Amino acid sequence: MTLQELRTPCVLVDWRRLERNIDRMQAAADAGGLRLRPHAKTHKSPEVARLQLARGAKGICCAKLGEAEVFADAGFEDIRLPYPLHPSNADRVIALLDRTHLSFIVDNIEVARGWSAAMTAAGREVDVLVKVDVGLHRCGIDPDASGAAEMVAQVGRLPGLRFRGLLSHAGHAYSASSDDETRRIAAAEAATLTGLASQVGALGVRCEEISVGATPTARHSATLAGLTEMRPGNYAYYDRMQVALGSATWDDCALTVLARVVSRPAADRVILDSGSKTLTNDVVRGPGETPGYGVVLEALDRFSPNRQLVIERLSEEHAKVTVAGGCALAPGDLVRIIPNHSCPVSNLVDRAWKVDGLNVTGEVEIAARGRIA
Amino acid sequence: MTLQELRTPCVLVDWRRLERNIDRMQAAADAGGLRLRPHAKTHKSPEVARLQLARGAKGICCAKLGEAEVFADAGFEDIRLPYPLHPSNADRVIALLDRTHLSFIVDNIEVARGWSAAMTAAGREVDVLVKVDVGLHRCGIDPDASGAAEMVAQVGRLPGLRFRGLLSHAGHAYSASSDDETRRIAAAEAATLTGLASQVGALGVRCEEISVGATPTARHSATLAGLTEMRPGNYAYYDRMQVALGSATWDDCALTVLARVVSRPAADRVILDSGSKTLTNDVVRGPGETPGYGVVLEALDRFSPNRQLVIERLSEEHAKVTVAGGCALAPGDLVRIIPNHSCPVSNLVDRAWKVDGLNVTGEVEIAARGRIA
Repeated sequence: MTLQELRTPCVLVDWRRLERNIDRMQAAADAGGLRLRPHAKTHKSPEVARLQLARGAKGICCAKLGEAEVFADAGFEDIRLPYPLHPSNADRVIALLDRTHLSFIVDNIEVARGWSAAMTAAGREVDVLVKVDVGLHRCGIDPDASGAAEMVAQVGRLPGLRFRGLLSHAGHAYSASSDDETRRIAAAEAATLTGLASQVGALGVRCEEISVGATPTARHSATLAGLTEMRPGNYAYYDRMQVALGSATWDDCALTVLARVVSRPAADRVILDSGSKTLTNDVVRGPGETPGYGVVLEALDRFSPNRQLVIERLSEEHAKVTVAGGCALAPGDLVRIIPNHSCPVSNLVDRAWKVDGLNVTGEVEIAARGRIA
Repeated sequence: MTLQELRTPCVLVDWRRLERNIDRMQAAADAGGLRLRPHAKTHKSPEVARLQLARGAKGICCAKLGEAEVFADAGFEDIRLPYPLHPSNADRVIALLDRTHLSFIVDNIEVARGWSAAMTAAGREVDVLVKVDVGLHRCGIDPDASGAAEMVAQVGRLPGLRFRGLLSHAGHAYSASSDDETRRIAAAEAATLTGLASQVGALGVRCEEISVGATPTARHSATLAGLTEMRPGNYAYYDRMQVALGSATWDDCALTVLARVVSRPAADRVILDSGSKTLTNDVVRGPGETPGYGVVLEALDRFSPNRQLVIERLSEEHAKVTVAGGCALAPGDLVRIIPNHSCPVSNLVDRAWKVDGLNVTGEVEIAARGRIA
């Protein structure tokens, strides 16, 4: 079967590119002596995660307990949730501990005490890491706050918790304006974590693990001393945002959307059947910001942007594309799109097509789609 | 069961409000003598659509063939797709004609000829309407273009097609800056359609139906002469965008998201467990534009915005809420959110909870979720 025969819109995964992306990141982690623990949120697919393990990854990450439950059911034995779980989920965590090695993060001493109480009451222990805010200012403890090391050490001494170390996510690297800035962010992250780990060590609590995770910083983090693990996710597929950041080229992008022209009401306007229900309303922010909800490729098998076409606006089921200059697209024609952000696209479909060039070679199930809780 | 016992995040539908919204729109349509054909894209739920039919709606709309297939399987006998289907889908349309009364739109004479050929070859006929662009400039024929009436008349004469009339969507009313402007948009839409129908009639082709559809214009359209049908969808649930437009009040909003505080890393920052995988990155545009990805309510049962909290940014699984002034929210606390746009929220979950005040009364299945093709 070829792309021409598929119902549109649909999500395509170029399997050779996926394997190449997996191999390259594994090689970078291996060269740096770091364990690679890919974040499965990008693909939400046990089949893809098994490929990552087969190529050398040590365990996976999931975003929510619902995702972890799917991967545990699929036989994954080591799952980390870099998410600040609340003890109201203790029943689900305890159930998961029966069938997988689970770890998660805390960034609040009261929450850590709640987990300690819940696990102690159940006669169980669970691995935890303390999340450190290295500049994104989302979750995590402030490493510069007075008492930061003491808080970590307190977590390290709580019964019911097996303290593993420190974890961070340098998501602010998505706003970096140059590769140099990305490198500086990665270096500062490593310095912050290793410095805090030393302070915690001085309090008699050892950080066995220092875990970082973000695709833009990954290739820099792999060269830095003191880290034990990296957790990039997006590198499996990449997307327009990563190309804007210099983390990937168009020819690395493994996930695309196949769409069809459904209306050509004017010379300067083409309407596609892929709206926000397929491409999402995610935008490319920061210095590399460019307009449009994804990039239309020059041809189905030519991975360079068609500069005449801008996906100006999405409604749920329509993409409104503005056309600069001439363009022969007519109703029924197919186009291929690299989305701005591939992870949420995976979340919108139950399965994607595996492709090799213009050939369809199979299907991949996105078993953990929609597990928001 | 009460809201306190639910796993978060999750989607709630206040069933009394839903029924009240359905009744009010039905009453407006009845008063104007228009058939109400709700767009099911908002809820994607056969149970909700059955309620709409029971209260007086004549048929439903679906956005894509995949949605229509779900509703046809659920026994719905009259389904309209206000979407410019391409004849590459003829096999699916023909299969649907065996089990439901299907109609759809065309806005291109070549596409109409393609459908005519496909239906004639299959020995079948299908109902079509011509989509007219009344100002949104998405799909639809330009009613002011020379030859517009002639194009409609040509469609009306094609074998294999049962021409029903004209259809429009005044989506530009989502950018209206006042109720007066919305009224003018609705009036202009009706004038455009009835004027074009007259011209088409002069060419010997009768438009039996004049169908309009958009929630902001609906209450105005119901008072206008010459229309036969209206197709609002969002009115079942409403959302922050409709409140900004004056189409609804906070107390009409039937769909909400229940979320939990998972981190409180700073006095001015609260992190919730509902990210773009639950709330979507849809923004409220236009003159009523306000920052934030949804509105946090003052209390779980008080439907007024908490003005101290702005959902400043979403990542997939986190909402970053900035806090102005004091706020006691701590990890574990629940908040209730009215999303910017309720329709795509329905698309992200397989089921929602029915609620009555703070009580959970059941579940509603969102059977047509994710049917993008």
